[in-house]
Amino acid sequence: MPATKRAEAAAPRHVHRAGKDGLARRLNRIEGQVRGLNKMVEEDRYCVDILTQIAAVRSALDAVALQLLRDHTHGCVQDAIRSGRGDPAIDELFTVVEKFAR
Amino acid sequence: MPATKRAEAAAPRHVHRAGKDGLARRLNRIEGQVRGLNKMVEEDRYCVDILTQIAAVRSALDAVALQLLRDHTHGCVQDAIRSGRGDPAIDELFTVVEKFAR
Amino acid sequence: MPATKRAEAAAPRHVHRAGKDGLARRLNRIEGQVRGLNKMVEEDRYCVDILTQIAAVRSALDAVALQLLRDHTHGCVQDAIRSGRGDPAIDELFTVVEKFAR
Amino acid sequence: MPATKRAEAAAPRHVHRAGKDGLARRLNRIEGQVRGLNKMVEEDRYCVDILTQIAAVRSALDAVALQLLRDHTHGCVQDAIRSGRGDPAIDELFTVVEKFAR
Repeated sequence: MPATKRAEAAAPRHVHRAGKDGLARRLNRIEGQVRGLNKMVEEDRYCVDILTQIAAVRSALDAVALQLLRDHTHGCVQDAIRSGRGDPAIDELFTVVEKFAR
Repeated sequence: MPATKRAEAAAPRHVHRAGKDGLARRLNRIEGQVRGLNKMVEEDRYCVDILTQIAAVRSALDAVALQLLRDHTHGCVQDAIRSGRGDPAIDELFTVVEKFAR
Repeated sequence: MPATKRAEAAAPRHVHRAGKDGLARRLNRIEGQVRGLNKMVEEDRYCVDILTQIAAVRSALDAVALQLLRDHTHGCVQDAIRSGRGDPAIDELFTVVEKFAR
Repeated sequence: MPATKRAEAAAPRHVHRAGKDGLARRLNRIEGQVRGLNKMVEEDRYCVDILTQIAAVRSALDAVALQLLRDHTHGCVQDAIRSGRGDPAIDELFTVVEKFAR
């Protein structure tokens, strides 16, 4: 999708500085958890323990997604609505929400 | 949970050789995807693009979990049932299924 | 939660006429499906068939919820943002989104 | 799917008497909740309240499904494994689990 067709705000920064650091920290932790999963498979760990760990990674990812969705709505979507470009921004938001609802 | 209280089969190998290679490959790819997410945040990419990528990682994780659950049931759980230790193995299975149903 | 503390629009009609008829129709169909589930249990139908039908009801409910969320955001939330009451309306929206993310 | 190709146990009763009463009771309650949803739409109730109620129905349905899955595994699947027909019964189980994982 070309950038001009999207609901991107004019400002180049999409994730606010404070939020960005927190997000990077959480994604780093998730990367470590996935690396840990790989190690568990290598070491022939019990499948139920691997599954429990996968469920934890999934919860961590969902929490990150929910935070990003919330920040995006308070930020970009709200800005778009104020500038009279609300409907496409909301449609775009729900296109991605649907990907999580599957 | 001590190993003796669990439904682990006597055999030390829980994930079969063939399944193990496939699993390691899929988890490596997921690790790369999470690293990619971190890079997107660093580069201030558009939040909706980051969210779309998170949804992809989540789907990949769910597919791995479903495959592991299936293999575990065909393997460990079926073995446990044949050895008369079926009920605790099934309870353990659903404890982990519930973590995915949340 | 008292109505005055909520992000309700001033207008008394929350679900638009056209949307309301469609919604009522879909909920009627879901009510019939749940009644059908009860009948399946009474008739001692095979558990896997009952489960398949439960999954269908769940999908139908999720589709209704997604439609309502979308309409609510295009309607009430957008109105609230335009009237300068955007942040509480967005917080309220995500409180309910989280209930679906569980 | 013809009954002869399925993992149905020979016994005609799939849901045990005690479990059946509990299941019927829970489905009756869910049917009432869906009827309540319809009434909320008719009365033009606030969309967020309707959504909260839909989330409650969904949780109730998921709890019923999880219980049925568990009973089915302890019952039909375990019986099938003991009779040497385990693999198709497990495949059938995961076909329905996947419908919930979507």
